[in-house]
Amino acid sequence: MQLSRKADYALRAVMHFAGLPKGKLSSIGAVAKSQKIPREFLAKILKDLTWAGILVSYQGVTGGYRLARAPKEVSFLDVVEAMEGPICLNLCCEGDRCECEHYKGCKMRDFWIKQQEMFRKALAQANFSKYKAIVKES
Amino acid sequence: MQLSRKADYALRAVMHFAGLPKGKLSSIGAVAKSQKIPREFLAKILKDLTWAGILVSYQGVTGGYRLARAPKEVSFLDVVEAMEGPICLNLCCEGDRCECEHYKGCKMRDFWIKQQEMFRKALAQANFSKYKAIVKES
Repeated sequence: MQLSRKADYALRAVMHFAGLPKGKLSSIGAVAKSQKIPREFLAKILKDLTWAGILVSYQGVTGGYRLARAPKEVSFLDVVEAMEGPICLNLCCEGDRCECEHYKGCKMRDFWIKQQEMFRKALAQANFSKYKAIVKES
Repeated sequence: MQLSRKADYALRAVMHFAGLPKGKLSSIGAVAKSQKIPREFLAKILKDLTWAGILVSYQGVTGGYRLARAPKEVSFLDVVEAMEGPICLNLCCEGDRCECEHYKGCKMRDFWIKQQEMFRKALAQANFSKYKAIVKES
């Protein structure tokens, strides 16, 4: 029961972009170097973050990526769910989609639903105006 | 980021034992049937729960398993950690054993440590005096 390496890297990558001056682009290579993320894996992650509307990509020699919105408008929840899909602490927590045979009368389900709600709330409240990497200009 | 199926089954199995009259044994077959857990997988789980000191096993034709202590003395944390090892929501949360290159000055680490502590606390406070299965005597 652990955050995926992919989501952890994605959070670190977004911290990098949040630490850039507004509007400044950063390349895959620069993010990989500053956050020590394997380049190939990072390329996939940045693509997924762009697809999720968290980053914007610019093509070309002088291209790169930047945040699609202000750091305070991007939450940990946005990033984690872009990588892993909806938070689901136990199989029974998928709301109406629960397919567990024990759904009816299961006393544990309330516990997991409550934990999930608390965790989602904490992730939603954490935004990148507070969590920024110190990016050294190269 | 989800509880393993193994830990979920283990919690359900312990709910079964918590629902038995004090001292009464239950067989693998009876738990598998009542909680709809695949028998082979359950056998491994009950062995691990016994190894962890949560269950006691009795050999022989009339043997079986029972809780090693009162239901209120067994927490969700005991069971989950017996199955998955210490709770570790992100790689950086393993205390002094953190091997992340970004350990120093990482702003995210406090967030994950806090979430982990809250989650561990909730798991430790949930015990099986409240979470008991309704076991049909066979």
